[in-house]
Amino acid sequence: MRSANRFNVIDLIIKKREKGALTDQEITDLIEGYTIGDIPDYQISAFLMASYLNGMTDAEMMALTEAMLNSGDVLDLSDINKKKVDKHSTGGVGDKSSLPLAAIVASCGVCVPMISGRGLGHTGGTLDKLESIPGFSSQMTLAGYHRQLAEIGVVMMGQTRQIAPADRKMYALRDVTGTVEFIPFIAASIMSKKLAEGIDALVLDVKFGSGAFMEAEADARKMAETFVRIGDRFDTRTVALLTDMDQPLGRKVGNWPEVAESIECLRGEGPEDVTEVISALSAEMLVMGGVAESLEEGAEQVQDSIGSGRAFELFKEIVTRQGGDARVIEDPELMELKARTMNVVAPEDAASTIARIDGRVVGRSMNVLGAQRMTKEDDVDPLAGVTLLVAQGDEIPEDRVIARLQASTDEHFEATEQLFSTAFEYSESASAPSSRIVDRYSNGSWMNP
Amino acid sequence: MRSANRFNVIDLIIKKREKGALTDQEITDLIEGYTIGDIPDYQISAFLMASYLNGMTDAEMMALTEAMLNSGDVLDLSDINKKKVDKHSTGGVGDKSSLPLAAIVASCGVCVPMISGRGLGHTGGTLDKLESIPGFSSQMTLAGYHRQLAEIGVVMMGQTRQIAPADRKMYALRDVTGTVEFIPFIAASIMSKKLAEGIDALVLDVKFGSGAFMEAEADARKMAETFVRIGDRFDTRTVALLTDMDQPLGRKVGNWPEVAESIECLRGEGPEDVTEVISALSAEMLVMGGVAESLEEGAEQVQDSIGSGRAFELFKEIVTRQGGDARVIEDPELMELKARTMNVVAPEDAASTIARIDGRVVGRSMNVLGAQRMTKEDDVDPLAGVTLLVAQGDEIPEDRVIARLQASTDEHFEATEQLFSTAFEYSESASAPSSRIVDRYSNGSWMNP
Repeated sequence: MRSANRFNVIDLIIKKREKGALTDQEITDLIEGYTIGDIPDYQISAFLMASYLNGMTDAEMMALTEAMLNSGDVLDLSDINKKKVDKHSTGGVGDKSSLPLAAIVASCGVCVPMISGRGLGHTGGTLDKLESIPGFSSQMTLAGYHRQLAEIGVVMMGQTRQIAPADRKMYALRDVTGTVEFIPFIAASIMSKKLAEGIDALVLDVKFGSGAFMEAEADARKMAETFVRIGDRFDTRTVALLTDMDQPLGRKVGNWPEVAESIECLRGEGPEDVTEVISALSAEMLVMGGVAESLEEGAEQVQDSIGSGRAFELFKEIVTRQGGDARVIEDPELMELKARTMNVVAPEDAASTIARIDGRVVGRSMNVLGAQRMTKEDDVDPLAGVTLLVAQGDEIPEDRVIARLQASTDEHFEATEQLFSTAFEYSESASAPSSRIVDRYSNGSWMNP
Repeated sequence: MRSANRFNVIDLIIKKREKGALTDQEITDLIEGYTIGDIPDYQISAFLMASYLNGMTDAEMMALTEAMLNSGDVLDLSDINKKKVDKHSTGGVGDKSSLPLAAIVASCGVCVPMISGRGLGHTGGTLDKLESIPGFSSQMTLAGYHRQLAEIGVVMMGQTRQIAPADRKMYALRDVTGTVEFIPFIAASIMSKKLAEGIDALVLDVKFGSGAFMEAEADARKMAETFVRIGDRFDTRTVALLTDMDQPLGRKVGNWPEVAESIECLRGEGPEDVTEVISALSAEMLVMGGVAESLEEGAEQVQDSIGSGRAFELFKEIVTRQGGDARVIEDPELMELKARTMNVVAPEDAASTIARIDGRVVGRSMNVLGAQRMTKEDDVDPLAGVTLLVAQGDEIPEDRVIARLQASTDEHFEATEQLFSTAFEYSESASAPSSRIVDRYSNGSWMNP
C-alpha cells in the first residue's frame, strides 16, 4: 500500500517535471498524503521545485488552495449576525496598517476575524508588533476566537494548527527549499488560510517596491489579480489595492515603534501616508461589510470612528481582552522610557534634500538592530526600531538629525547605523511622494489599467 | 552554526533555481553536508530538481563526481602488479555480458575489480544474476575484495557502504523524487563509484533503443561523451562503445537464464550478438590493460581464452570463491529441472517472419513474471525468465513456438504472456539485424561520427 502510494507520488512529480498539469484529484491526493505524513518532505520539495520552475495552471492553483483549505477546520461564524471581512497585506517595511484598521472597521459594525502571521526577512509581522505590548497574547483557542468575535466583533490572533495545517507544513518546507517567491504558492497559502477563517469578504493590500516582498509593479499586479481570481472562485468577494512600498510606510519601523505609530493613527495624528492607506482599505471593508453604500461614505465613517475616539477605545479593548497592558496604549511614553536611543545624522557633504529612503535597506538594518527575525529561531527586541525624522522631499534639518534609532541595548547601534544610513539618497531638490495607492483590482478589472 | 549552515544551503538552492552555476567549493560543501547528515533530504531533493530542470555545467558535474568519489574510501590496488580495468554497461534487456567478460579478461592477465549494482525497472542487474547461482554471495569486505583480486585477478561484488556513500544516499533520493534520468547525475553517480574502485582504465557499454535505459541514440552518444570526459578529467583511460539495444541481447532474459547463456558464451556456444559485444568490450580492456597491442590482437586472445577453456575455469573459480555451487555451472540442467515452463506461440494470423522483438516490452513482461524488481522491496524469482526461440529475420517455426517462459511457479505465466506476446512484430519478410556495435568514442572523438 505504502509502496504503491509512493510510486504514484513519483509519477506525479515526473508529470510536473515534464511540464504536465496535475488534475484536481492528483493535487488533493498529494496534499492529503503530505498532511497526514504519508508523503515525505523530500518528495514534496521536489514537487515544489518542479512547480516553481515549470509553472502551475490556474486550475492547479485552485485545487491546491482548496486542498490546503480543507486540510483543517473551516470556521463557521454564521451565528454572528454581521458580515465578516478581513484584510491581508503582502507586507512592507513600516506597514502597521492592520492594527488601527481592525479597530476602526470593527467599531463601524463590521466583524473583523483577523488571523495573522509573524515577520520574516526584512518586513515585520502583525503578531510580533502586537506582542511588543506587555502581556499581549496572540494565542487563543478557536472557541475563544469565536467568543471574542461575538462579543466585541474583532480579534487579532496567531495562526492555529487547526486551520490549514497543510499550508503550515508546506510553508515551512518552502522556506528552507528556495521555493517561497512563487505567485501560485503565495496565493494558495494566503487564500487557503483566509478562506478557512469563515469570512464573507476580503481586502488585500498588494505592495510593490524596494520595501515590499515583490519589487516589480508588474509582479504585484499579477499577484493582486491572482488573489482576486481565487476569492471569486470560492465565492468570497475580494478587492485588491495596489500600493507603493518603495519607501517605508509612515515614520516608524520596528515592533513597539509601529504600535506607537498605530496609536497616533487611532488618535488622528498619524502620518499622512499610513492614514491614507488605512482609510482606503477600511472603506473597502465597510462597503463589503454592508455598512457603507460607497467608498466615500466608508471613508467618512472611518474619519468619524477616529474623531469620536470609538476606534481607539476598541483597540484598547482588544488589547485588554487579549491580556495586554492597556496603560501603554494610553501612554506610550511608558514604553519609550525603557529604550536606548541614538541619533542618525546626515553626512556633511550630503545635498540639501531627501531624494529617497530605500525601504529594503531600512528593513534590513532593522534585522541588524534585532527588530526582526532572519531565521525562525531568532528572538526579537520589541523596543528595537527607528523613527524617521524626514521623508522624501524634506530638507535636511538644521541639526542634521534625520532619524533616531532605538532598542533595549545600544550594542547593535553602530552596525545598524552603518547600513541604515545608506538608505538615504540626497539631491538638491526633490518633491514629496504622491499617493501610495496606485490602483485597485476587483471583479476582473483594474481601475487604472 | 546549524542555522548559518542551512541558510547557506538555501542560497545554493536558489542560485541553482536561478540558473546559476555552483562553484566547486559549493558543490563539495553540499555533498559533504549531505553525507554526514547536516543537510536534510528535502533540501537536496529541491537542489536535484532545480539541477535537473536548469541543467548543470561540466565543471559542476566534475565537482559533483569528485565530491561523491571522496565521500568514502578510494581503494588503492597499487600492490597488485597488473593493470586494473573495469567495465560498466548502462543496462539493457538480456545484457549478461559482464559475467563472461570478467572471467575472459582476467584469464588473459588483466585485473578486473568489478563492483556491480542490482536491477531496477525493466533491466536486470549483474548481482541479481550472480545470486541466482545457489550460495553465491556478492557481499564481501574490502579486505576480501583486495585478497581475491590479488589471488585470482577478478572479483564480482556488490556495492559497499565504504565506497561513495554520498552516491548511495543520493541515488536512493533521486529514485523517489523523479530525478533519475539526467545525464550529469547518472554520469557522476557511475563514474564516482568506478573511480573509487582503484582502476587504471574503464570501458563503457552505452546502450540505446527500446531495451535500454535511454531510447534515443543521440542521448546515448551524449552519455558516452560525458563518461569519457569525466574519465579523462580524472586521468583514467576510458573508452565507450555505443551499442544497439532495441531488441533483447542474446536469447535468454532473466537472472538464472542469463547465467545459463553466459555459460554458453564461455563455452563458445553463445548467440552471435552477445558474443560480438563481449568480444569487443573484452578486447578494449585487454588493450587498455596492456596485454594486447591492438583490438585485433585482443579479440584473438578472447577467442583463445574461450577456446582453451581458461575463461570457463576461471568463472567457476569466481563462483566457488564467492560461495556459489559450481556444479550448476558445470551442469546448468540441474537448475533448469526446477523450473516450470510455458511455450509462447505466434498467433495464427501472424505474417511469416519476425520483424522485430521490442526490448522494453520483453523487459516489462519479466517484471510481471517476477524476474525483476519494480520497487527495491520486491523479491525476485531467480529462475524466472524467457528463452527466445526466434530472432529478427527468422521465420516462424512449424510448431509456431517462438519463446519459452520459465519460473519457479506458473502463477504469473498467463499475465506475462499477455504482455510478452505484444513484443513481437511480424511481416512477410525481414532481414537479420546487423552488428550491435554502432560506434566507439575515445580521446574526444567518435570513430563514425
